[in-house]
Amino acid sequence: MARGLPSLHPSETLVATYKDIDMPQSPETNRRIVLNSRPHGAPSPDNFRLDTTELPKPTDGQMLLRTVYLSLDPYMRGRMSDAPSYAAPVELGEVMVGGTVCQVEQSFHPEFAVGDWVLANTGWQDYAVSDGQGVIPLGRNLEHPARSLGVLGMPGFTAYMGLLDIGQPKPRETVVVAAATGAVGSAVGQIAKLKGCRVVGVAGGPKKCKAAVETFGFDACIDHYASDFDQQLADACSSGIDVYFESVGGKVFDAVLPLLNVKARIPVCGLIAHYNDTALPEGPDRLPLLMQTFLIRRIKAQGFIIFDDYGPRYGEFLAEMTEWVKSGKVKSIEDVVEGLENAPNAFIGLLEGKNFGKLAVHVG
Amino acid sequence: MARGLPSLHPSETLVATYKDIDMPQSPETNRRIVLNSRPHGAPSPDNFRLDTTELPKPTDGQMLLRTVYLSLDPYMRGRMSDAPSYAAPVELGEVMVGGTVCQVEQSFHPEFAVGDWVLANTGWQDYAVSDGQGVIPLGRNLEHPARSLGVLGMPGFTAYMGLLDIGQPKPRETVVVAAATGAVGSAVGQIAKLKGCRVVGVAGGPKKCKAAVETFGFDACIDHYASDFDQQLADACSSGIDVYFESVGGKVFDAVLPLLNVKARIPVCGLIAHYNDTALPEGPDRLPLLMQTFLIRRIKAQGFIIFDDYGPRYGEFLAEMTEWVKSGKVKSIEDVVEGLENAPNAFIGLLEGKNFGKLAVHVG
Repeated sequence: MARGLPSLHPSETLVATYKDIDMPQSPETNRRIVLNSRPHGAPSPDNFRLDTTELPKPTDGQMLLRTVYLSLDPYMRGRMSDAPSYAAPVELGEVMVGGTVCQVEQSFHPEFAVGDWVLANTGWQDYAVSDGQGVIPLGRNLEHPARSLGVLGMPGFTAYMGLLDIGQPKPRETVVVAAATGAVGSAVGQIAKLKGCRVVGVAGGPKKCKAAVETFGFDACIDHYASDFDQQLADACSSGIDVYFESVGGKVFDAVLPLLNVKARIPVCGLIAHYNDTALPEGPDRLPLLMQTFLIRRIKAQGFIIFDDYGPRYGEFLAEMTEWVKSGKVKSIEDVVEGLENAPNAFIGLLEGKNFGKLAVHVG
Repeated sequence: MARGLPSLHPSETLVATYKDIDMPQSPETNRRIVLNSRPHGAPSPDNFRLDTTELPKPTDGQMLLRTVYLSLDPYMRGRMSDAPSYAAPVELGEVMVGGTVCQVEQSFHPEFAVGDWVLANTGWQDYAVSDGQGVIPLGRNLEHPARSLGVLGMPGFTAYMGLLDIGQPKPRETVVVAAATGAVGSAVGQIAKLKGCRVVGVAGGPKKCKAAVETFGFDACIDHYASDFDQQLADACSSGIDVYFESVGGKVFDAVLPLLNVKARIPVCGLIAHYNDTALPEGPDRLPLLMQTFLIRRIKAQGFIIFDDYGPRYGEFLAEMTEWVKSGKVKSIEDVVEGLENAPNAFIGLLEGKNFGKLAVHVG
């Protein structure tokens, strides 16, 4: 292990132990956070393990990428499990997957030069070798690197396509957005406002609700911790709900369901409230009720996985969103955690709604 | 009451009593089947009442329509209840709603002449006055009037738009069709075959399954009464399911759900297995499971009500379907019951799957 850190048994909670230790990126070794064990329910720090390997070496046609920012996103919970999903799970002992903003450290690749910024998928580690496949150039100067993981990256793209292509919002319609101050939700709400909709957010706690209204311009934002949450949501949606942008499920969806209008659309990009479920909830079985609601109110619900479904339209998104961000029409909040070693606890907090804005780790 | 029939108390089961009585259409009176009481669970004959009124009289701009065929369709169960739905319920004492093929008996309407055939919505009765609103002309000669209520009417239109617009079937995809020999299902399967799909039907009993394959050209049809139905369906869909045309729900949907492919589409036009439900089924609650399945497999589910959602495209449907029917590419089976007085029992049987093909009543 680098820098004289003691070698601990993998089952010990290394991350918690290391969190206050100064262990910055080194030009000689590669720190990696690997999947140590699969969680049952909510992940805990001992599901992760920090290890250190030699620096990988690029060969002809390859380059060495150094991670500057690592994105933390709810979908990563799915990759920690081996239950069937849309993507293969991370194997035990393998590096956790994740989107990253990197700089090119060494290059034997004709299209990338040392010092270039890139958007990549190199995971929870300091360095990775890449042949350029799936790597998006971000230029030589990048003023706000973390934004490329948020409003200008995967979450912004998810918001843009899910809302516009599946949600099809029309002026004066009511759009309800779960996780309103999150990376996806805050973008959804602001785009919906640009399209002339009435936008009602749902978030956890008064601080987030205030930011949804004051920073992001939502018309209202309801605190899902409120004891009369259902009633407050109904009051805020007096004309019903035309588009519900789903990323959480659970009690938020339960409150939304009776408010959905005829011809409502539900883009489904996540169900964070259920990611730690270990069993189905108790009955009655509402599956038939849901399908009947879809039928009677002619509702469309559609799941999507952004790059799989819309990959070729990334440029279209980036061009328009960059304009909106530059002109101040779309704002973003980044919640940046310092140090790769703090990624696991930050990720665990993300699943509990502890982040405030787009969660990213400043790796080095 | 006409023709010397005894006047009975409304609560008596008139329909059952009258079913073998010769009581044909009369040119002097109007027999009507009205909603006598709302069903709790499965409808019974005493939810209906046959009464007789004077012939309605058309005035200027109106015409008198005489019902020749009455369509019986599962959606009518919803109109018998006062639970919120996409359409207002039939009020107690009002004529049951229903699509009809009529002939013009008297006309003070500039666009309709005595003897014209029309498609109308005059309900479960012998005569009705119409101002032409929503009435579709069917010409002076109509070789197969009942077809205009089936493959060339609302059920065919439902099949056509639900499959093509929502289902978006592609060649070599697997399309599964519930209620495969029903008015909608038989058309869905045949259109899917015309589009180059592999088509697997689900129907109740060997006679219907045989007809799905031999008459309608399905590649396979699975009997949902079979004890190993789930396994048989899985075997018949070895490449998974790309489009599931939903009209039944219940155990058929339960068997379909695990077989749905990534990017599957589910047009939802009905849920007949649940129409008589009086409570939600026992748990566990599979609502989150359904939403997770939609997310993970990027599935689209969409409810639709044919004339509300696609009314302006009726002409497009009729032109293409008429060609297909004329050329023998799409076949239909009509299950015609004689006599308006037998409509209630025929309708009750429809909800139990007792009909074979498009169910219509030959009224007069």
